[in-house]
Amino acid sequence: MKIGILGYGNLGKGVECAVKNSADMELAAVFTRRDPASVKLLTSGVPVYSVNDAKKYKDQVDVLVICGGSATDLPKQTPEYAEYFNVIDSFDTHARIPEHFANVDKAAKNSKHTALISCGWDPGMFSLARLYANCILPDGNDYTFWGKGVSQGHSDAIRRVEGVKNGKQYTIPVQSALEAVRAGKNPELTTRQKHTRECFVVAEEGADKAKIEKQIKEMPNYFADYDTTVHFISEEELARDHAGIPHGGFVFRTGKTGWNKEYNNVIEYSLKLDSNPAFTSSVLIAYARAVYRMNKEGLTGCKTVFDVAPAYLSPLSGEEIRAHLL
Amino acid sequence: MKIGILGYGNLGKGVECAVKNSADMELAAVFTRRDPASVKLLTSGVPVYSVNDAKKYKDQVDVLVICGGSATDLPKQTPEYAEYFNVIDSFDTHARIPEHFANVDKAAKNSKHTALISCGWDPGMFSLARLYANCILPDGNDYTFWGKGVSQGHSDAIRRVEGVKNGKQYTIPVQSALEAVRAGKNPELTTRQKHTRECFVVAEEGADKAKIEKQIKEMPNYFADYDTTVHFISEEELARDHAGIPHGGFVFRTGKTGWNKEYNNVIEYSLKLDSNPAFTSSVLIAYARAVYRMNKEGLTGCKTVFDVAPAYLSPLSGEEIRAHLL
Repeated sequence: MKIGILGYGNLGKGVECAVKNSADMELAAVFTRRDPASVKLLTSGVPVYSVNDAKKYKDQVDVLVICGGSATDLPKQTPEYAEYFNVIDSFDTHARIPEHFANVDKAAKNSKHTALISCGWDPGMFSLARLYANCILPDGNDYTFWGKGVSQGHSDAIRRVEGVKNGKQYTIPVQSALEAVRAGKNPELTTRQKHTRECFVVAEEGADKAKIEKQIKEMPNYFADYDTTVHFISEEELARDHAGIPHGGFVFRTGKTGWNKEYNNVIEYSLKLDSNPAFTSSVLIAYARAVYRMNKEGLTGCKTVFDVAPAYLSPLSGEEIRAHLL
Repeated sequence: MKIGILGYGNLGKGVECAVKNSADMELAAVFTRRDPASVKLLTSGVPVYSVNDAKKYKDQVDVLVICGGSATDLPKQTPEYAEYFNVIDSFDTHARIPEHFANVDKAAKNSKHTALISCGWDPGMFSLARLYANCILPDGNDYTFWGKGVSQGHSDAIRRVEGVKNGKQYTIPVQSALEAVRAGKNPELTTRQKHTRECFVVAEEGADKAKIEKQIKEMPNYFADYDTTVHFISEEELARDHAGIPHGGFVFRTGKTGWNKEYNNVIEYSLKLDSNPAFTSSVLIAYARAVYRMNKEGLTGCKTVFDVAPAYLSPLSGEEIRAHLL
């Protein structure tokens, strides 16, 4: 299976690593908006091409993994490249998924390609956990907690505050809330009761730290609804202690069974990830295998993780997975 | 969707409850080996027929849920009824799954029915957790812990010991082992290090309790490889404190990502169930919906949970699940 990568940032590099760890795949090409000569891959012997030439290589790539951002890149790129390639993306702007799905579906159906959108862990594996659990326990409550992990959006928001040189934000589930959910107590939780936010900030020299802290804590949408802690540290400390991009979280479904709904049940799915992009890429690559196979079987158009039978993800045969994993 | 139940024990009753909790389903009939007149359902107005007459009602049932035992019932019943009905079972003798699959597949393909075997939580939801996690993290370790919960097989084994009037056995994960796995320490665990077994035994009057305890603790396969505790209690205490059939467990996959496999990841899926048969039935009923739909689409033959795209389980449309659960 020949994999192409479009966009060589954190996610693109993660896909490169996941391909290396998959015996049935090889990296065919990387496409970039930068000068291809300036992009140095980890894998030796793989060509880097300009994104403008990508379509020329459509017969050399079985599945193109599109590693752009959800805000402006993917809404344009995924439908565009679905006309030439089987594609997969990690589009995560929940509110715009119906629109994105429709655009990609149209392009993929026209060209008889298979496309899979919104793949990763949320949306992705967490969505699957929610769907399965909702189908099994139709009478129940859903809870999702994120973290402990780095939120890129909140880290960016900190860095836009005047006087801030650099910064990183961790989203942290409130342990007591998580324990109450796990114990089946079905608490009603406000935004503030579910997560706290912890910020590590490098201030510019002479900046007013009290003012920075106030501005962060009162920032609407991002921090105002949370209990937020702000720590001022040096650029060296930030580089030393906060270089990673860990993340994770918890999906719960609590629900009732029995004739009089007398039995309680708790379904929990959780992830603890040293590197968010490396894990997201590993999910993308497992689903790239499914996209390739579904296309071979004539299953074209746009799909999500909900439409993919799990067996398509495995390099093993049906006999093997029934014998060893069932 | 019209559901039939074959076998009205704990599991059959659970299916009846799960059908009641599913707005798009109705219970069409129950088939029993007992005298139908002696079987009193929870649902009013639903006929009970002799299992010998089941085939007469093949056009009145969309999916037949076969609630027999794995040892002798299902290997015979599921292939037999797959000739007349779409069927689903919870066959859980792991070693015989390939053989059972082949037999059911042949019958279902011949008659253009859809069959799903080995559905429930293990095999079933735990199998899915293992498969997804193995596909995402090809380089890693699997751990499954069961409990705290009642093991029917071990409870039966206790009751076969001379001098034992009644008894119940709980399988309990060793908390320190579970924590080590959750922390990503990848421990190598012996059978004894993973689970303990706790037995509540009602002895016959005048029975030699020391001898009973010794016999239980030294019983090969069932108890000899475990740290086992035996409590002697009265029949009243057993009825009062141990009437339920709770169960659950944990599936972990720990694995590496990154170019040099420098990142650790922990995927955890767990269940905590007040009633094992009520939850198993709820899984069966969600998959019965999938069986019905797959049959409508011409997807015939024998399937497992690995072959079912998750969207088939939901009563909601593709648009709805993408909008609300993705």
